[in-house]
Amino acid sequence: MKAGVFDSGIGGLTVVKSLIEHKLFEEIVYYGDTARVPYGSKDKNTIIRYAIEAVEFFKNFELDIIIVACNSVSAYALAEMQEVSDIPVVGVVEAGVAATAKKIQNKNDEILIIGTKATVASKAYEKGLKELGFHSLVAQATPLFVPLVEEGIFGGKVLEATLEHYFKPLKKPSAIILGCTHFPLISEAIGGYFDNEPVLVHSGEAIVELLERDFVFDSRFASTRLRFFASDNPSFLKSVAKRWLDT
Amino acid sequence: MKAGVFDSGIGGLTVVKSLIEHKLFEEIVYYGDTARVPYGSKDKNTIIRYAIEAVEFFKNFELDIIIVACNSVSAYALAEMQEVSDIPVVGVVEAGVAATAKKIQNKNDEILIIGTKATVASKAYEKGLKELGFHSLVAQATPLFVPLVEEGIFGGKVLEATLEHYFKPLKKPSAIILGCTHFPLISEAIGGYFDNEPVLVHSGEAIVELLERDFVFDSRFASTRLRFFASDNPSFLKSVAKRWLDT
Repeated sequence: MKAGVFDSGIGGLTVVKSLIEHKLFEEIVYYGDTARVPYGSKDKNTIIRYAIEAVEFFKNFELDIIIVACNSVSAYALAEMQEVSDIPVVGVVEAGVAATAKKIQNKNDEILIIGTKATVASKAYEKGLKELGFHSLVAQATPLFVPLVEEGIFGGKVLEATLEHYFKPLKKPSAIILGCTHFPLISEAIGGYFDNEPVLVHSGEAIVELLERDFVFDSRFASTRLRFFASDNPSFLKSVAKRWLDT
Repeated sequence: MKAGVFDSGIGGLTVVKSLIEHKLFEEIVYYGDTARVPYGSKDKNTIIRYAIEAVEFFKNFELDIIIVACNSVSAYALAEMQEVSDIPVVGVVEAGVAATAKKIQNKNDEILIIGTKATVASKAYEKGLKELGFHSLVAQATPLFVPLVEEGIFGGKVLEATLEHYFKPLKKPSAIILGCTHFPLISEAIGGYFDNEPVLVHSGEAIVELLERDFVFDSRFASTRLRFFASDNPSFLKSVAKRWLDT
């Protein structure tokens, strides 16, 4: 099996990491739209336009599936991508919803969804979770987490003040959906803010669970061939991939 | 006189504000490339490509001058824009250098330049200031200030921690060049961090000084006609303009 992984930037590499660890694919083609990142503050129609362009890009390869690692794209443009694609397209939002339901049995439990402004405004996670019977849902846009991660700030006073800024008004959640590919890199700090050890839902692990549930994998691959494409500065993408994925 | 003002996003409105206050133009056409903002982390060649597209865009209007409000574009693409433009193109970097020299007489004084990663990496301000005899120059990329401003955080603990993060290792400067159009919105906090009341160099005021030095303005205009264009979400640009410019 060969997969295309699409993200607005480099954050989707956290999803690639999970895919490699679980040896699901013999080849992964990663496309990061780094020339137009971030999507999280862009208009819905613009996100859809860019997402359809990504499907066209992947048609240059013989792929079996497209995985949308970007939460904003998954929230706004998944159906539109599926419409123009000849192969299945799966996204991190549906995966995150399924993973949450698997981890949290009590439908009364408080679920906190964090993400970019676009992802939170889409209410895509709430919609999916409500259909499964959850009703105690709080969504908080935490856009500053993205530049913090990109600045390499994984702890310290700036992050602490930012956590306080976003989380102080909130009740302790049973689970936190990390609704942005950057957030796994500060997941310890995010989870650690609350003293009740909330369950963290990670897009990469959630996608693996979804794939294993919905698709048949005949074999596992000892190693995954990786190809990286970026609309701007591909060498930066490759250097981050080297660091994050240890390739 | 009619001017085109180009910025990667909405930040250039702080420059427009200064232009309106000084009544220099009867019409300003603002173009924000909001579909591809921010430029500050993009590759030099990508920035040049986008900047040339902006010159082409402005050819649809009968303009007398193009003002580049974006520091990253001014730092990397001004010469390339001038090459393809039939009308003068001026940028905030040359303006900021000139304004600093006007405000600071002692060439030994410490000048702090803050901006995006791209602007700081370009060393454009240092180059200009060194040519004028300044030699005690420190440049600090402060990329987190941009999303803070966009989040509407103009004070409080997150901003304090971020100021501390960037400025703690630095000596007290005599002047701070606000090398990003977003920074005037938190200039009080930036200047206030240092207890020696450094002079702040603001791109908008600097551009007005440069224009008045290099161009002849036959008349002043009681009001400025404003036209706004954005490559994404123009209604957001217009709503911010309404708020910032009180139009």
